[in-house]
Amino acid sequence: MSVTLSATLAANEDIERRRRAGERVLNLAFGEAGLPVHPALSERLAAASGFNGYGPVAGAFALREAASGYWSRRALPTDPDLVVCGPGSKPLLYGLLPAIGGDIVLPMPSWVSYAAQAELVGARSLLVPTPPGEGGVPDPERVTAAVRRARAQGRDVRSLLVTLPDNPSGTLAGAATIRRIAEVARELDLTIISDEIYRDLVHSPEAGFLSPADVAPERTVITSGLSKSLALGGWRIGVARLPSPALRDRLLAVASEIWSSPAAPVQQAAAYAYTEPPELVERVSRSRELHGAVARAVYERFVRAGVRVDAPRGGFYLYPDLTGLDFASSAGLAAYLLDRHGVGVLPGHVFGDDPAALRVRVATSLLYGETARLRLAALDAPDPLALPWISASLDQLGEALTGLFASRGAPSPPVRVPPVAAPATG
Amino acid sequence: MSVTLSATLAANEDIERRRRAGERVLNLAFGEAGLPVHPALSERLAAASGFNGYGPVAGAFALREAASGYWSRRALPTDPDLVVCGPGSKPLLYGLLPAIGGDIVLPMPSWVSYAAQAELVGARSLLVPTPPGEGGVPDPERVTAAVRRARAQGRDVRSLLVTLPDNPSGTLAGAATIRRIAEVARELDLTIISDEIYRDLVHSPEAGFLSPADVAPERTVITSGLSKSLALGGWRIGVARLPSPALRDRLLAVASEIWSSPAAPVQQAAAYAYTEPPELVERVSRSRELHGAVARAVYERFVRAGVRVDAPRGGFYLYPDLTGLDFASSAGLAAYLLDRHGVGVLPGHVFGDDPAALRVRVATSLLYGETARLRLAALDAPDPLALPWISASLDQLGEALTGLFASRGAPSPPVRVPPVAAPATG
Repeated sequence: MSVTLSATLAANEDIERRRRAGERVLNLAFGEAGLPVHPALSERLAAASGFNGYGPVAGAFALREAASGYWSRRALPTDPDLVVCGPGSKPLLYGLLPAIGGDIVLPMPSWVSYAAQAELVGARSLLVPTPPGEGGVPDPERVTAAVRRARAQGRDVRSLLVTLPDNPSGTLAGAATIRRIAEVARELDLTIISDEIYRDLVHSPEAGFLSPADVAPERTVITSGLSKSLALGGWRIGVARLPSPALRDRLLAVASEIWSSPAAPVQQAAAYAYTEPPELVERVSRSRELHGAVARAVYERFVRAGVRVDAPRGGFYLYPDLTGLDFASSAGLAAYLLDRHGVGVLPGHVFGDDPAALRVRVATSLLYGETARLRLAALDAPDPLALPWISASLDQLGEALTGLFASRGAPSPPVRVPPVAAPATG
Repeated sequence: MSVTLSATLAANEDIERRRRAGERVLNLAFGEAGLPVHPALSERLAAASGFNGYGPVAGAFALREAASGYWSRRALPTDPDLVVCGPGSKPLLYGLLPAIGGDIVLPMPSWVSYAAQAELVGARSLLVPTPPGEGGVPDPERVTAAVRRARAQGRDVRSLLVTLPDNPSGTLAGAATIRRIAEVARELDLTIISDEIYRDLVHSPEAGFLSPADVAPERTVITSGLSKSLALGGWRIGVARLPSPALRDRLLAVASEIWSSPAAPVQQAAAYAYTEPPELVERVSRSRELHGAVARAVYERFVRAGVRVDAPRGGFYLYPDLTGLDFASSAGLAAYLLDRHGVGVLPGHVFGDDPAALRVRVATSLLYGETARLRLAALDAPDPLALPWISASLDQLGEALTGLFASRGAPSPPVRVPPVAAPATG
């Protein structure tokens, strides 16, 4: 087995070790939402501490019903019996692989665990590059040829994955691309797995959001969870919306042999969260604004330094391209940035990108402060960028970029810097 | 993929549906500990509700340190860095399969998920019958031949699993057998996975407990958790004690791609539990006494009815053999018992036993009462068997057995009924 510790978790553990050892390291490597638990959720968890039964493998009915309401309010009417909950969306994504079977088409670059999970279950990934400026979706114009070629070689390709909005690029594929990829999936009879864990963190929700489930409901699984929108990564709760009882049953069979069910007290709190009470809607809204403001500020630092990078549309990621600097690989660049400039980022190759391309993933969500108090202040601030600890981190990044370019050459001049305002979609 | 919903979870969901529909069903099918959360643990969970970071894949240091103390107090000195925590011991057992690789020797019969997990990761199970009266351990005298035969056929057998004390049989392998299986594992260079989730529920702890880790520490992984001893199944927390950094690293790599980490608030409460404070030691001790008393009472009902069954030594299971009754399979027997006599048990074939053998697994832990108040009363009672709701359930079982024998013939006369007193071990 060649699988190694998940690159994002490993990078985070390394950076945290350095910080404990006294190094001044800016953690731009880890996709943790970096915000405190809302008190209403803490209260629900505490009130549910007596829940110690295993409960149904699919999750408690209250949680499945609430999740079905969540999707129904997003114009995706959902039968609670087609919802499956898991201890995070990661195990659900893992369980879907043997439940669906066969090989899977992945966008390139894409989140570190998709390809690693496929390798673990003995499936192979077909990496298909994303269209320019629309990360998270394998280019529909290249998918058909890739799948036909693989099938001609005897491979059994059965699914295709999209991330909306995207990790690592922070972009969001537009409606035309989603319609086209759904069409291609239908032509090729592929199940679509739509990872929408960042959906509620699209920076300009008024611009619209199109899920493959809107256009190809018969073949789309949506996975989501509370790790990002409500910063509950450590609580480990995810939900999946299945297109059919048959696939649900296969997923439940896998789930029952690997994880049984998510932690019961967490399920109760999550059931409350998915009813979307006003205080949590407001919390998600403030979080979205903070993530957007800081991601855009970091984006502007890169743009001002002359770096090619797509404008962030959702979540808390950027994927700058530092072509032109004197490094042989993104791994060398990331190691140098950490060791010499105290800035931790992830090299693009861990997302399946060309190792020689000097692209790195920048996570901006650990800039909100070291303590719950500072993070809450960032959430509440009308202008979070003016907070001294956030502006100091931005300055540290700016200095690191200046130092990097001074020692290793300037990046190539930008060829494409999209405007920050969101394009029309939907 | 031929894996179906875990047999124990599926049976439980079926029985719970029948109960909600108004049927009077005795749930002897599900291995849930059937006791309430201790208030000290509820308080710890509530106090940790603010823990929302992913934390280390191996688990929080406080939990790993506490688990290392737990094992050290059992004469197994343990480095906290060789402890890996997971969301239940089930995912840890699953993760060990790709981490170790190759095929696995399993006792026959054994817990439903071992073979299903192996099938999921594409490994094959070598089912080796257990010695008489010592369930949970593949008969050491048959393992060598089975492994040599498999290897001669080109199979890559790398591990061997034991369950101490056992599920489904409720027995506990003696020291001589443990020493012998460790010797065999060493000769064949097999990693031993020792599932000790019921260790603290050995009914007569003064009789001693020998783990393969005591005699073959270089090759033994122990898995455990709080699901049984502290009735925290629904909290999903397990721990593993690894024999080497190399195997730990491979397990962490798998864990990082499937589940990331256990729920952070649960980890904090579990860290407290593994320090074994007096109030929890007392709770485990009372639980052990209750489990033992009720398991023995159920055992005596079967013995009085003339059924062959090993005396329970730990946990809350029995594995009676109803040979002589007029059924073609254990599945037919279990279905008849449920439909005609309102008694839910699991057929032996789901534990890998011969489908034609009329053995069923009887779980006795859901007899303590329908509510937390009744279950607490059972825990506190000097004579729990005298409690009306427990004696009524025992009577219901007795009547069901009488009815079963009246309609489908008497079981064969018992050939071996070991005494209830625990044999010397250690």
